[in-house]
Amino acid sequence: MVRRVAVIGAGPSGLTSIKACLDEGLEPTCFESSHDIGGLWRFKEEPEPGRANIYHSVIINSSKEMMSFSDFPPPAELPNNMHHSEVLLYLRLYAHAFNLLQHIHFQTTVVSVRQRPDFPVTGQWEVDTEGREGQRRTHVFDAVIVGTGHFTHPHLPLSDFPGIESFEGRYFHSWEYHNADGLQGKRVVVIGIGNSGGDIAVDISRVAEKVYLSTRSGAWVVSRVGQGGLPLDLVGFSRLVMMLHRLLPSWSAWTIKKTLNQAFDHVLYGLKPKHGFFTQIPVVNDELPGRIISGRVQVKPNVQEFCGSSVVFVDGSTIDKVDVVVFATGYNYSFPFLPPALQAKSGYRLRLYQHVFPPTLSPPTLAVVGFIHAFGAINPMAEMQARWATRVFKGLATLPSEEAMLQDIGTVTKIMFSCTERNPLQVDYIPYMDFLAQRVGARPPILRLLLKDPRLGLQVLLGPCTPYQYRLTGPGQWAGARHAILTQWERVCKPFKTRVVPEPVGGPSSRLRFTLGLSGAVLLCWFLYKKHSLSSFICFPPCFRSPR
Amino acid sequence: MVRRVAVIGAGPSGLTSIKACLDEGLEPTCFESSHDIGGLWRFKEEPEPGRANIYHSVIINSSKEMMSFSDFPPPAELPNNMHHSEVLLYLRLYAHAFNLLQHIHFQTTVVSVRQRPDFPVTGQWEVDTEGREGQRRTHVFDAVIVGTGHFTHPHLPLSDFPGIESFEGRYFHSWEYHNADGLQGKRVVVIGIGNSGGDIAVDISRVAEKVYLSTRSGAWVVSRVGQGGLPLDLVGFSRLVMMLHRLLPSWSAWTIKKTLNQAFDHVLYGLKPKHGFFTQIPVVNDELPGRIISGRVQVKPNVQEFCGSSVVFVDGSTIDKVDVVVFATGYNYSFPFLPPALQAKSGYRLRLYQHVFPPTLSPPTLAVVGFIHAFGAINPMAEMQARWATRVFKGLATLPSEEAMLQDIGTVTKIMFSCTERNPLQVDYIPYMDFLAQRVGARPPILRLLLKDPRLGLQVLLGPCTPYQYRLTGPGQWAGARHAILTQWERVCKPFKTRVVPEPVGGPSSRLRFTLGLSGAVLLCWFLYKKHSLSSFICFPPCFRSPR
Repeated sequence: MVRRVAVIGAGPSGLTSIKACLDEGLEPTCFESSHDIGGLWRFKEEPEPGRANIYHSVIINSSKEMMSFSDFPPPAELPNNMHHSEVLLYLRLYAHAFNLLQHIHFQTTVVSVRQRPDFPVTGQWEVDTEGREGQRRTHVFDAVIVGTGHFTHPHLPLSDFPGIESFEGRYFHSWEYHNADGLQGKRVVVIGIGNSGGDIAVDISRVAEKVYLSTRSGAWVVSRVGQGGLPLDLVGFSRLVMMLHRLLPSWSAWTIKKTLNQAFDHVLYGLKPKHGFFTQIPVVNDELPGRIISGRVQVKPNVQEFCGSSVVFVDGSTIDKVDVVVFATGYNYSFPFLPPALQAKSGYRLRLYQHVFPPTLSPPTLAVVGFIHAFGAINPMAEMQARWATRVFKGLATLPSEEAMLQDIGTVTKIMFSCTERNPLQVDYIPYMDFLAQRVGARPPILRLLLKDPRLGLQVLLGPCTPYQYRLTGPGQWAGARHAILTQWERVCKPFKTRVVPEPVGGPSSRLRFTLGLSGAVLLCWFLYKKHSLSSFICFPPCFRSPR
Repeated sequence: MVRRVAVIGAGPSGLTSIKACLDEGLEPTCFESSHDIGGLWRFKEEPEPGRANIYHSVIINSSKEMMSFSDFPPPAELPNNMHHSEVLLYLRLYAHAFNLLQHIHFQTTVVSVRQRPDFPVTGQWEVDTEGREGQRRTHVFDAVIVGTGHFTHPHLPLSDFPGIESFEGRYFHSWEYHNADGLQGKRVVVIGIGNSGGDIAVDISRVAEKVYLSTRSGAWVVSRVGQGGLPLDLVGFSRLVMMLHRLLPSWSAWTIKKTLNQAFDHVLYGLKPKHGFFTQIPVVNDELPGRIISGRVQVKPNVQEFCGSSVVFVDGSTIDKVDVVVFATGYNYSFPFLPPALQAKSGYRLRLYQHVFPPTLSPPTLAVVGFIHAFGAINPMAEMQARWATRVFKGLATLPSEEAMLQDIGTVTKIMFSCTERNPLQVDYIPYMDFLAQRVGARPPILRLLLKDPRLGLQVLLGPCTPYQYRLTGPGQWAGARHAILTQWERVCKPFKTRVVPEPVGGPSSRLRFTLGLSGAVLLCWFLYKKHSLSSFICFPPCFRSPR
C-alpha cells in the first residue's frame, strides 16, 4: 500500500502535490534543490542553471480566479493579473494555509530515482538526494511525483542560424533576460514570438533604438483585458462557450478570428499564423499592437543568417548594426534523475498518459505533475493531476491497460502535431479538467446543480470555469466551493475599487447579454417553477449590474 | 504694406509659419533661443528652463497622416504613431525641403516685442533680441508671429497640497521626467491624468514597486490602435462621422461612450470622468488598461494631504512609504516679451480671436500660432493658423470688428469652461480647420469634388480628414494634394509591411462596411452615371481590400 510519497520540486506543482498527498492521507516528502518555494515564480537576481528564470516585468497570463488552486481562492485585494511577486505571495499563502512547508527539504537535490528490485510487487522507489554540503542519502518511497516543470533548460538552436559564430554583437537566450538595462539605444533582434519573446520585445522597445521581432510562423495575439475591461479568460470562456465551440467549430473559429482581427488585423500586422487559434497557445500581450503601430517593434520573418553585425531574414531584408540578439526559442526539458526507460518520447514530449503517467510502468507509482502546455492556467491543472495521481497511487482510481494508454498517447500526439510547431497546444482546459475530474470523482454534476441550486448551476454553466467547480462534489469536496464560486466576481472587482466613481455602471455588455439571453431562454423554463428571482440567475459580476 | 515678419520660435509652429510667410511672398526672420529646430520635439538630455521637455518614451498621439503638414506627406516608411525622434526627423525633412533653416537665427532670444510709436499707421513692431554672448539688437518688423508653444512653464500648484512641505520623499514636476531610472522598486504617486500623467505612470510602473495614479476628475482613455489595428484618428473620424455627431449629438455621445466602455468599463476602472467625451482632450494611452488590470498602476482619487512619507487621498485612504511624487499637473504659459495689453486673458487663456489674433490690436499685425488645446493634431492647425495670419497681415483676409471678435471670444470661452476643468478642449479639428480654411479660401469644395472627381470626393467625405484636403484649392493650392489623399492609405500600410503574410486580408470591418454602405447608398445614385467602377469609390486602405 502506498504511504510515503516523494515530491520532487517545491514550485506550484510540487506544493499542490504535497497538498494532494496530505488530503489523501499520504505522507509526502518534498525535495527542493533551492532554498525556497515558488519554482518559476521565485525571482532570481541571477539566473540559476537548471532552474526556471523570469524577467522583472512578468505578469501572469491567467487571471487570479483562473490560476488559483481549487480550494484556495486568491485574496480579493490581489490584482486580477498578478505580477510575479504577487503570484509568489499567493503560493506562500497557500503553503502556509495548509502547512506544506514542514514537508519540504530545502537545498536537497534529487540525484536519481530508480525502481527497487522488488518494484513489480511493491511499486517502491529508491530516491538518492544530495544535500547542501554534498551529503548523499538514499530514501525509499512508495510513490514519486515529479514536479520540476519545463522552463529549466533553455533551447538555443544555434545550428539553425548560419553565421551566428560570425555575429559581432551579443546574443543570449531569453532565459538569461532580466530587464532592459544596458540595452538603451541598441538595435535588438528578438527571435521567437512565444509569450517570452513578445514580452521581451515590448520590454526592450521602451529603451532600445529599435526592436525587430522575428517569427517563423506568426502567432495569434490576445490581450489580458477582455470585453468591458474584465479579464479575458473570465469573460471569454465558459462551459457554454466550450459547448458552442464543439457544436459549431467553424463558426467558433470564424468568430474568434473576427474578434482578434477587430482588435488588430493579424495580416496587416504581419503576425497571422497558419495555424488555427486552438492549435497553439496564443501570445498574451497587452502592449504589442501599440508597440507595432508606433514602430518601436517591427515584426520580421525568420532569420536566414547572420553576417558580421547584420541579420539577414528569409525575405531577403537585412538589418544592419544589430547590437543584441535575444533567442526566445523556448525550452528543452530534462529529467536526468529518471530511469531512461521512463524518458521515452512521443513527439517532442515525454510519453505520458494524459501527461501524467508513464504508460509502461506497473504498478503506476510515478506521476509527472505540471508538465504540460495548456490553453489555461497550469496551477489548477497541476492540482487536478496531483489529485488524480494520489488516487491512482492508492488504487482508488485505475488506469487503462498499457495498450490503451499507448494508443491514447499516439492519437493525442498525432492531433497535437498536426501543426508543425515545436510547442503545440497539448490540452484545452475544460475538457482536460473534466476528464481528470471524472477519474477523481470530482466532476461537477451540472444538471443536478441546475435543478437543485440553479443560481450555482448557472454560474457553473455560463460563468467562468473557475477551479472551485472541482471541489463541489466527490473526494476532496470543499464546503467553501459554492461560496467561492458565488463570490468570484466580487474578488474580480475588488482590486479595481481604488477610486470609486459615484455613478451606476451599465448592465452587462451586449455580447454578454446575448449569451445570457440565448442560454437563459433555453434554460428559463426549467427554473421558473423554483420561484428563484431572475436576478439570482445573473452570472455576471455584481459590479456590472446597475445598482440603480 | 507688410513685408518683413518676425517669427518667434523654431518648433513646428515656427517652422510652418516661416513656410507660410514664404508662400505669401513675405520675408520671415525666425528667432530661436536654442541651437536647433524642433521645439518640444527636440529631446533634451537635461531639462532646459523655459523650454518644453519630453521624456524618452514619448510617442505622438496623432497618426502620421493626421499630424503632417498639408503639403508635406510623411515618408511612407515612418511608423503611424511616431516616436519623438521620428517627429523631429519629419520636422527636419520639412525644414530642408522648403529651405526654412536659412531664415532662422539660432541662439537668439526675443527679449521684447513692442509696438512702434507709429503702430496705428504702420502696424510695425520693434523686436529686441539677445544673442548667444549677450549681444542685444533691435529689429523692426511689419508683423510678428509668436510660435513659442505652451509646454514651457510647469504648473506646480503646491499650495493645493497641504503638508507637501513635510513630505519626506522626493517630488518633481512631470516636466523634469526623462525615464524611470532610479525609480526601481519605489512607491510612486503620479498626480494628474493628462497625457503626461498617464504615460509617466505606465512608464514607471514597469520598474516601480507600485504606482498610484491620482486623478481628481478622471478621464476618457483611448488607444492609438483603432479598429482593425489602423490608427484610431484615421478610422474613427471623418467629415461624415462629424456630420452625424452634429446631427445626432446624443446618439453620438452614447455610441462613443459605449465603444470606450467596451474596451474597458471606465467606472469599473475608476476612471470615468463627469465630463463628456468632447469637452476635454481624452487621454491617449495604449497600455494603461493592461497596467491597471495587473495592479501595477492603481487609480486613486485626488490627494487631500501629505503627511511625512504618507499620501492621504480624499476618500480617506492612505498610501504609506511613498518614495516619489510626480506632479503631472500641466503647464502655465508665459509670453514675457509681449506688451501687457496683449496678455489679457479670457478664462485661463490668452484672449485671442480664434486662438490667433489679439482682438484689440489694429492693424492686426501680430498673430499667435500653435497656442491651442485641440481634439486633433496641432501641426496642421498651426499651419492653417499661419496661413490665415499671413493672409490677414497682407490684407487679403479681414477680421471682424473688435466688438464682434470680443463677443466671439466670450461665447467660445463660456462653452469651453462649461466643464470646470483647467485645460478644457478648445477646438475640434474639422470645424476649426474648415473655419480658418474658409477665411484663407482653401476650404475643400466637397460637393464639387463629389460631382467632378467622385473618387477624391468620397475620400474627402468618408475618409480621414487629412490635412492635404486643405491644399486642393484656393491660395496655397498644391498640385500633389489629390495624389497625397489617394495614396494616404498606402503610406499607412507601408510601415506594417515588415513581414508579409501570404494571405488575403479580409474586407473592411463591419462598422466600416456599415458606414460605407450607409453613405454609399445615399451617394451612389449621383455617381453611377459617371461610369466609375465601384471599386474606385472605396475609401479604405488598399491593404484592407481582398486582393483575391
